[in-house]
Amino acid sequence: MTKSIFYHAGCPVCLSAEHDIIQLIGAENVELVHIGQDRNRIEEAEQAGVKSVPALLTPNGNVLHINFGASLNDVKG
Amino acid sequence: MTKSIFYHAGCPVCLSAEHDIIQLIGAENVELVHIGQDRNRIEEAEQAGVKSVPALLTPNGNVLHINFGASLNDVKG
Repeated sequence: MTKSIFYHAGCPVCLSAEHDIIQLIGAENVELVHIGQDRNRIEEAEQAGVKSVPALLTPNGNVLHINFGASLNDVKG
Repeated sequence: MTKSIFYHAGCPVCLSAEHDIIQLIGAENVELVHIGQDRNRIEEAEQAGVKSVPALLTPNGNVLHINFGASLNDVKG
């Protein structure tokens, strides 16, 4: 894995963080995944260690939870 | 301001996030500030909106709180 993955759920905190992350690391270096819409990616996010969104999964497998938009349980509903 | 500023307090969560941020955006693009040691920078961090460390202040003035190491109040002691 060479790209980071940015998991979000479309919330205002998510969108603001998404904008910042793209500016910091470049759009070509990050895959954006909206787990509120792409619900089949929720399990993958959970297994990677994502507890809340927005979160950035780095290429080396670490999860950076950035600010706080919603818990994964809230996204799962 | 063209560099980001990474505020931390030397905690394990801080060091792990610092390593990730440097890998993601490059050491030349981020100033590292240890507010547990550089205590005269605490007020600046607070005024920028930092509530906990580790936190990244972006060039456009947004604060990304990354995971959670310690609250600013804990650092102030």
